[in-house]
Amino acid sequence: MANNISGFLELLPADRRVEAEITDTFRHVAKLHGFQEIETSAVQTTNSLLQKGETSKEIYALTRLQQYFADNSAAHVQDSELPKHSLRFDLTVPLSNYVRTNANELVFPFKVFQIQKVWRGERPQKGRFREFTQADIDIVCKNIMPEHFETEVPKVLLKILAELQKVGVPKAQMHINDRRLLEAYYKLIGIKDVAIVMQVIDKLDKIGAQKTDEMLSEIGLGADKTAKILDFSAIIAHSKQEFMQKVQEFVTKHGMQETDELLYEVERLGDKLDAITADGFDAVIDTKIARGLDYYTGIVFETFINGHEKFGSICSGGHYEKLIALGKDSYPGIGLSIGITRLMSFLIDNADSELQQKASPADVLVLVNSESTRNASDDLAKTLRSRQIATDVCPFSDKFGKQIRYAEKLGIRYCWFVGENGAGLGNDSGNDSGNDSVKDIVTGEQVPADRNIWSVKAETEVIER
Amino acid sequence: MANNISGFLELLPADRRVEAEITDTFRHVAKLHGFQEIETSAVQTTNSLLQKGETSKEIYALTRLQQYFADNSAAHVQDSELPKHSLRFDLTVPLSNYVRTNANELVFPFKVFQIQKVWRGERPQKGRFREFTQADIDIVCKNIMPEHFETEVPKVLLKILAELQKVGVPKAQMHINDRRLLEAYYKLIGIKDVAIVMQVIDKLDKIGAQKTDEMLSEIGLGADKTAKILDFSAIIAHSKQEFMQKVQEFVTKHGMQETDELLYEVERLGDKLDAITADGFDAVIDTKIARGLDYYTGIVFETFINGHEKFGSICSGGHYEKLIALGKDSYPGIGLSIGITRLMSFLIDNADSELQQKASPADVLVLVNSESTRNASDDLAKTLRSRQIATDVCPFSDKFGKQIRYAEKLGIRYCWFVGENGAGLGNDSGNDSGNDSVKDIVTGEQVPADRNIWSVKAETEVIER
Repeated sequence: MANNISGFLELLPADRRVEAEITDTFRHVAKLHGFQEIETSAVQTTNSLLQKGETSKEIYALTRLQQYFADNSAAHVQDSELPKHSLRFDLTVPLSNYVRTNANELVFPFKVFQIQKVWRGERPQKGRFREFTQADIDIVCKNIMPEHFETEVPKVLLKILAELQKVGVPKAQMHINDRRLLEAYYKLIGIKDVAIVMQVIDKLDKIGAQKTDEMLSEIGLGADKTAKILDFSAIIAHSKQEFMQKVQEFVTKHGMQETDELLYEVERLGDKLDAITADGFDAVIDTKIARGLDYYTGIVFETFINGHEKFGSICSGGHYEKLIALGKDSYPGIGLSIGITRLMSFLIDNADSELQQKASPADVLVLVNSESTRNASDDLAKTLRSRQIATDVCPFSDKFGKQIRYAEKLGIRYCWFVGENGAGLGNDSGNDSGNDSVKDIVTGEQVPADRNIWSVKAETEVIER
Repeated sequence: MANNISGFLELLPADRRVEAEITDTFRHVAKLHGFQEIETSAVQTTNSLLQKGETSKEIYALTRLQQYFADNSAAHVQDSELPKHSLRFDLTVPLSNYVRTNANELVFPFKVFQIQKVWRGERPQKGRFREFTQADIDIVCKNIMPEHFETEVPKVLLKILAELQKVGVPKAQMHINDRRLLEAYYKLIGIKDVAIVMQVIDKLDKIGAQKTDEMLSEIGLGADKTAKILDFSAIIAHSKQEFMQKVQEFVTKHGMQETDELLYEVERLGDKLDAITADGFDAVIDTKIARGLDYYTGIVFETFINGHEKFGSICSGGHYEKLIALGKDSYPGIGLSIGITRLMSFLIDNADSELQQKASPADVLVLVNSESTRNASDDLAKTLRSRQIATDVCPFSDKFGKQIRYAEKLGIRYCWFVGENGAGLGNDSGNDSGNDSVKDIVTGEQVPADRNIWSVKAETEVIER
């Protein structure tokens, strides 16, 4: 991991190989579920980005370098104006623009995913970068969103996270909540401006109960309401049954009477949890999840790595009813996003060091006996590649010890010695591998090998993953 | 194909699916040859980008939007200074910065590829965009570059182009030349500033012989030299033998005497052509290929789609001896690049319309009998996905005719009817597919199907590709 410029992460090849496996897994599972891949433009109109005002200070605006070389007067005319174009800071606003631009060409419900970079000019800190990769999955509907999407989309993300365990991502648990549930409860306890309370509760995990208490007092809530909010935020449930029971106990304890609206929302969220966990996924209802962004209107999600909850959510999102509108049509949707760069920074800091050892995608390095017989090594590589075995040829023909060290440094496990039959006869006898042998540089074992049938051993694959 | 902002292309899902197949193919072949994937930062220091001065006017500089909201005086202080950071306009300068930053961590020769976006603020025109994807393959060496890389890298690119025929990219021919050959020839005919002549010759394809002639006169060359340059630029050869013969005939015709230097370069380039074409790839020596960028110092490449030479090169590059330096070490390298976005714009304009028909990656749409039996359809989809068959479930449970039209619009060929056994018994009988049937909406054929053994027919795969 190195920074060319502060805040702009560039991964070394071995780490990048892991990151690419993560995004490949994401794409594979998303496509397996019929999601369409799009790429939106990094450059969006500044106006469309500013509609989500709270992040405006983090936006990178674009100007033409040319204007700085022009005469000063011309440059200064432009300076006073807001630049028309800026870099996206998330993938949701560009998706919203994309749907509006292409509404007549797309098929709704539009099941879509994007894996792309976003930029934020915020001060760099541990695990936070100015350029980072997000992987988003959304279903955007026209006017009405079927409720079953609220469980289908998180299940796709949980399936992806399950598959990611194969590349070293630890197990994670999804925490779900519903803003409509919070609204029903806040109404019950007599709170008028529920949006502000949600914004405070959203920070609970970061700032702690003490500070949250203070902030709730600051916005004018008495001790009783503050306590009722904080107590309710502590409910965790692993099933609909447990959730209904806990809420029942909670209202009884506080001497309140459940409203029909609250009961409806409790059951609805409970049903969704049961639908999500029915496939064996790990998810809980967590009533302190609120999501700060004001475009979420229904179910919301955050996901924490087991034992590393303090690291924060690696996969978040929710249902947005009114984010996208065009003429008289609205486009409600639901989306979840994995912070790929954050996840990579977690893995680099926490995973075992093996992660960073394999720079080359090759499984085999073909050694070169001498420059005059390089052809024979090239031919061998060609045969292995035609059998889909990733193969490199040693770029130099120094002593074998040096060639093997080159393989070691790149994390290439198998070194192929081209036998005299092959090498001696050069190009013409590409298929004669009577004298070939392969050294496994992990075990040190060297055995005869036939280029037409040899393969990376099954047990190796387990180790490599 | 739609533009949210002029010059910033956003592909519709069906076109994006083709583009992703192109980049997937590129990655697969590059990895099969042992190239390491990296991603460099989109944001580079303006200074490092300006070192390639000729494109300075096209660079997008970054400023913080924040400064426009600050008080005017503060903003204007910054205005007079050149922004420190800008967006990359190619992948070579970022690679050069990456190598310098990580020189101690990388293994040289560093075999590397990048598939990433670049930005240029030039006026949008047909086939030219302000944001576009480049796919680069490079080998960067430390101090000395083995000559065999000059044939190995173009062969990897030709292999990629051959594989791309499966996704509809037409056959292409690589044109190679060597700047050292041009230098040797220009010296022979008494030209001093060979760099300027190369820059003019580089434009020959675009501006034609007449205009080139005028430009050569303008830089002070007489009619004799101009004719000798233009005549030499017309040589095309398909083998070393043909090239040597044509050059011999050429010098004789013009009453000149080949120098040792020229002969050496002719033989060297001829050997490289023969090495490249030995594997059956289509390549020719084309002495008018010069490449405008001044960092190329040796062999250079351009590649043209057969019958569409006027479209320009889709895959270009060359050998750069001195682009990257750090302390007393130099990092010579060779790189070739495919313009993915340009290639896509060609395919969209020229390929048959089938290309744009399949938006969804799914092969199967599972129909839904009613919302109350959606579980049965979900279960079926789960089984198919576990068998790696990309599967969507119809988001609504309207009449089958409407569900089938949804599949048609998305380009999903197979519609799966969940039989009564499955649907009626719901979740519990996921494996009982006695009554299931599948309709091929291309042939109209509908046949019974077992979810545990059904697969997309082999002949379909051929059609779909």
